[in-house]
Amino acid sequence: MDHGEFMDAAVAEAVQGQREGGIPIGSVVVHNGKICGRGHNQRVQKGSAILHGEMDALENAGRQSAAFYRDCVLYTTLSPCAMCTGAILFYKIPHVVIGENRTLLGGEELLKAHGVRVEVLDDQRCLELMKKFAAEKPELWKEDIAE
Amino acid sequence: MDHGEFMDAAVAEAVQGQREGGIPIGSVVVHNGKICGRGHNQRVQKGSAILHGEMDALENAGRQSAAFYRDCVLYTTLSPCAMCTGAILFYKIPHVVIGENRTLLGGEELLKAHGVRVEVLDDQRCLELMKKFAAEKPELWKEDIAE
Ligand SMILES: [Ca+2]
Ligand SMILES: [Ca+2]
Ligand SMILES: [Zn+2]
Ligand SMILES: [Zn+2]
Repeated sequence: MDHGEFMDAAVAEAVQGQREGGIPIGSVVVHNGKICGRGHNQRVQKGSAILHGEMDALENAGRQSAAFYRDCVLYTTLSPCAMCTGAILFYKIPHVVIGENRTLLGGEELLKAHGVRVEVLDDQRCLELMKKFAAEKPELWKEDIAE
Repeated sequence: MDHGEFMDAAVAEAVQGQREGGIPIGSVVVHNGKICGRGHNQRVQKGSAILHGEMDALENAGRQSAAFYRDCVLYTTLSPCAMCTGAILFYKIPHVVIGENRTLLGGEELLKAHGVRVEVLDDQRCLELMKKFAAEKPELWKEDIAE
């Protein structure tokens, strides 16, 4: 598994979100070594309450069988919140690769408790995107994490 | 809190989903006694992997502040799956009213463990909708619950 290529794609999604004036969190879903869905947070762009990066990537992966998700790895630039954690557990995605979890530590323990393999890359690009965003738009960031 | 009116609305959403050839699960989000979002499962209608009834209702409630959700009650015709449970926890919705949990027992224990008030009405309309659906379209039902 070449993490580099897939985390690059998740970061590219986050950067696209930043360019659109949105929240810079991106994600890709990889099925048997091939990206099958990619997305980024759509709170600003679509006024969406549910399209976090991970949810947008899952939605863009389309309607799939239960078996499909068992062969997937989800990449996300930021540690997944409770909602996205729930989606990962619901679809029984066995492996999650996280850019960074310093900005927000999501449901990693719950994922692990359910047997999900969780890797954190501590990717500086992901960290810098969120640092800049949280400093520039603290109210939007609070809204996005429902705080 | 008049559960009747709001569960009626959630059931009406489920029936609408059934009419559309979809999965008959509906939900409404109630803010300070007024419906602010309503929806039903959109797997068939929109090819959506994430628009369960509860998620559709949350999405249709629009982009809201963190404080808004603390004054909400979520009504759903069926016990919420892990994904929808995660969304309820993420938004810290304090009260969930469930039509029935015989067809599927979702994340009720996790909700309660986080202090969410969970009520189950054992509504026969909800049960009949799911019984008929699961008997007529067992493969679609399995797909919807990722089994
Ligand atoms: Ca919307
Ligand atoms: Ca779709
Ligand atoms: Zn999330
Ligand atoms: Zn659900």
